[in-house]
Amino acid sequence: MRLGIVQLNPHVGDIDYNLERIISYIAGARDFGCDLVVFPELSLCGYFPFDLLWRHGFADRMESALAEVVRNSEGIGVIVGGISAARVRGGANLTDPSSLADGAGIDLFNSAFLISDGRLIGEERKLHLPTFDVYFEKRYFTPGEGAQVFELHGERIGINICEDLWVEDGPTDTQASLGAEVVVNVSASPFFVGKGELRRRLAARRARENGVTLVYVNRVGGQDEIVYDGGSFVVSPEGRLLFQAPYFTEDLYTVDLEGLRPIRPPREEGIELIRRAIVLGIRDYVRKNGFSHVIIGLSGGIDSALVAALAVEALGREAVTAVFLPSEITSPESREDALETARRLGIELLEVPIAGMVDAAEGALPQRPSGLAGENLQARARGTLLMTIANERNALVLATGNKSEIAVGYNTLYGDTVGAIAPIGDLLKTDVYRLAARFGDLIPARVLEKPPTAELRPGQRDEDDLPPYSLLDQVLKGLIEENASREELVAQGFPEKTVDEIIARYYRSEYKRNQLPLVIKVSPKAFGIGRRFPITHRYRN
Amino acid sequence: MRLGIVQLNPHVGDIDYNLERIISYIAGARDFGCDLVVFPELSLCGYFPFDLLWRHGFADRMESALAEVVRNSEGIGVIVGGISAARVRGGANLTDPSSLADGAGIDLFNSAFLISDGRLIGEERKLHLPTFDVYFEKRYFTPGEGAQVFELHGERIGINICEDLWVEDGPTDTQASLGAEVVVNVSASPFFVGKGELRRRLAARRARENGVTLVYVNRVGGQDEIVYDGGSFVVSPEGRLLFQAPYFTEDLYTVDLEGLRPIRPPREEGIELIRRAIVLGIRDYVRKNGFSHVIIGLSGGIDSALVAALAVEALGREAVTAVFLPSEITSPESREDALETARRLGIELLEVPIAGMVDAAEGALPQRPSGLAGENLQARARGTLLMTIANERNALVLATGNKSEIAVGYNTLYGDTVGAIAPIGDLLKTDVYRLAARFGDLIPARVLEKPPTAELRPGQRDEDDLPPYSLLDQVLKGLIEENASREELVAQGFPEKTVDEIIARYYRSEYKRNQLPLVIKVSPKAFGIGRRFPITHRYRN
Repeated sequence: MRLGIVQLNPHVGDIDYNLERIISYIAGARDFGCDLVVFPELSLCGYFPFDLLWRHGFADRMESALAEVVRNSEGIGVIVGGISAARVRGGANLTDPSSLADGAGIDLFNSAFLISDGRLIGEERKLHLPTFDVYFEKRYFTPGEGAQVFELHGERIGINICEDLWVEDGPTDTQASLGAEVVVNVSASPFFVGKGELRRRLAARRARENGVTLVYVNRVGGQDEIVYDGGSFVVSPEGRLLFQAPYFTEDLYTVDLEGLRPIRPPREEGIELIRRAIVLGIRDYVRKNGFSHVIIGLSGGIDSALVAALAVEALGREAVTAVFLPSEITSPESREDALETARRLGIELLEVPIAGMVDAAEGALPQRPSGLAGENLQARARGTLLMTIANERNALVLATGNKSEIAVGYNTLYGDTVGAIAPIGDLLKTDVYRLAARFGDLIPARVLEKPPTAELRPGQRDEDDLPPYSLLDQVLKGLIEENASREELVAQGFPEKTVDEIIARYYRSEYKRNQLPLVIKVSPKAFGIGRRFPITHRYRN
Repeated sequence: MRLGIVQLNPHVGDIDYNLERIISYIAGARDFGCDLVVFPELSLCGYFPFDLLWRHGFADRMESALAEVVRNSEGIGVIVGGISAARVRGGANLTDPSSLADGAGIDLFNSAFLISDGRLIGEERKLHLPTFDVYFEKRYFTPGEGAQVFELHGERIGINICEDLWVEDGPTDTQASLGAEVVVNVSASPFFVGKGELRRRLAARRARENGVTLVYVNRVGGQDEIVYDGGSFVVSPEGRLLFQAPYFTEDLYTVDLEGLRPIRPPREEGIELIRRAIVLGIRDYVRKNGFSHVIIGLSGGIDSALVAALAVEALGREAVTAVFLPSEITSPESREDALETARRLGIELLEVPIAGMVDAAEGALPQRPSGLAGENLQARARGTLLMTIANERNALVLATGNKSEIAVGYNTLYGDTVGAIAPIGDLLKTDVYRLAARFGDLIPARVLEKPPTAELRPGQRDEDDLPPYSLLDQVLKGLIEENASREELVAQGFPEKTVDEIIARYYRSEYKRNQLPLVIKVSPKAFGIGRRFPITHRYRN
């Protein structure tokens, strides 16, 4: 069987656009002689529509889109992810009115449809609905029941959806026991470091357990804070990798299932994949929202230099404007480094001093702000100027904060936090250095070497205000990714006082994270929709 | 049986505090001769802890807290809501690492514990885990299985938890069939207009269906964007109201179940309950986060006047500072109205002109910002000044935006949106007028009568930029609360062009809502955690 694998980059909610792409890929696959072409999970609406699913008319539109795919499937088989709806609940139940508004009278299913030669052959409904980290599927969907096997061109095929592959005793087992030789999993699996390897190990195990060829088809593209990395693949019944599609690219890949030989798994370097994920995340956010230009406050420090380098890679140098916003505290070295970074990246640089605004604010206020209030004022003058330039040019601001800062609230809300997205907001400071190093001469050596400073008071150094980043980042990794408690962190040998300080700062700064731009997720646990803490609480462990 | 109903206002995550309150109420109930004292859902940790539930050590702390309650229950029965944990999943599953971090190896249950005279008698686990609107329970909890009946002082009692009462064929039915005469529902049910009446109708129906006395015990207090309103009650097996506790107040109420006569349901006025909900929401957010003072930008318009009046009611006049931030566009009437509002409310008023900051920004920028960029600059200068004053005084800013503005993005991100909470962010403009009218002479008549304006350009009126509020608000109600589609709204008689414009603005401004302060929820569908739309999407229906 000749298989077409389409790593689609759909636009959420733009059903016309997705349909057009799908129909065009079906035609392409047919031209390549494919027997079956497979599209990822929820391709027709894009993963993930959230409350759009509850908009009246959405399910009907999905139904008509599916009919359109069926009409365009002459001479080929198609597996495509979409929604099906059943009007089941009814009557005047005395239930909560918000539950009534939230998809009343309708059961929605996250489904994969098998279509062949102008006919809808069958539908497989997702059984296991992930509702942890960034997943919200139980909020919207009803789980399917049971699993089927379809016959196509003499091949017995099972279809299941994303999470269905990850659970023990899932539908792959059922489908194998019903005689499936090939199992196709359609996914929308977000990137984080190590995810590709994890997926291949998982799929190899499921293939071996069941003696089936496993075809894994993942969507690609940035969608708000999530980057889907593609990297679709095929493994043999022995668990050997037979085919591996590239990451981060929308395309059609054709595979002759019979003629495949085992290949080596790709060697993957985490930091390189992070670079590509962030680049795609920036590009898709900016372009899918109808923008083309971004504004970055360039301080002369490493964070903003890295964000500028990533933005240039994502959008091109003409699409990036750097703004250097010096105060009286800004050192001559910072100015040199900002200018030199912009020069090396080949981007426009504006210099907009903040002293006038800060002085005017201090003059207007009943008293001159002191300490932290004065430091925040400088950051907010910068935020205001960046946003004004962005509004004037119909551009987006990219925020330059990193995960270490965001975790302990070492930032100013409405100041250095302003922006549409925070491209390195899921990178600990130590990873910021690792990623910046990959840009070689594009970022001046001194930017990587000098001690970090917020430059909001004379002689300030980050490490005067915070524990050293090498220590801070280790504690944060335990705290955020592993949910390590105070006792566990202390038992790991971190100083008790430091652990207490970090935990207190971590919890206390939740209110800032609640108003942050979208942080592009590259780790197993990023700030954003996959993490949800109360702001008002007094837990300290 | 003499029953004690405790409408607790717990502090999320402050298990020591909650425990102390619970133990003290148990002692009080015993002094009043109660046989049984009932606390709301998750009283030991406070509803709702979100990802704190996954912090290592949290479940253990909950277990030791429960043991402490047991030790303090001599001579009395206690029903208290908390967490129980079962270590069940194990082994080296090849599952998603984020699922491993999110509560790996442990099943959590949302439980109510029955304790009597120093012994833990039993545990009832919540069966139905709400995961719509503001509820996230399937993210964290495993559902219980089956329902039991306990015997206490010769009375057969069933216990169930919040949502368990709302579903058809829920545990109340099972418990009645097992002989329960009294069913106690422990809840953490958020306020919105009409909720009290809805709960009583629901409970009356369940009581009648099953011939049981139904005791409904709800928590009270503000927790981030949610206000729990209390209003606990008892209904007879005939569905008649026997007892009604006040709303919005923490207290112990004693009820002799045998001696009760039917009472009239309270007459409830929606707008008055909204007032009390917002007041409690402000008070609890400010105080539970360790603050005492708030700052409000007073423009002379109705929104900020109303927020100031609500803040005074919540915190006292000494705790509120108003800041009037005129520009060159600000009219003399606005200044008079702002000053007069502050005078009538008896609050401090600072006058801080923004012209200096705006001029300085315009001077520093490569070109003078035009149009919207210039308007936003003024709003952001105000936001920066308000935040500077708040930082200087260790106070919180209250944002003054209303639901109509927020829905169509008629606001400036980092400008008039700055703040910790948005007290009237769930009130449509037409409801802002209704609520403001309740404050009588505290808000000058002209503030209610003059046409609304953002005063960001000369002669600006809201209704030049937006459809008239009377029309806008009706469309928004359909759009937000009922998920009405474009076609449905047009069929209801709203002008097609207006509907299209409102829908486009609604979707396009999602990015602003993603960075907004907490909006105190008073309607069935508020901006905040109960509503989740993608920012990047192209759906227009």
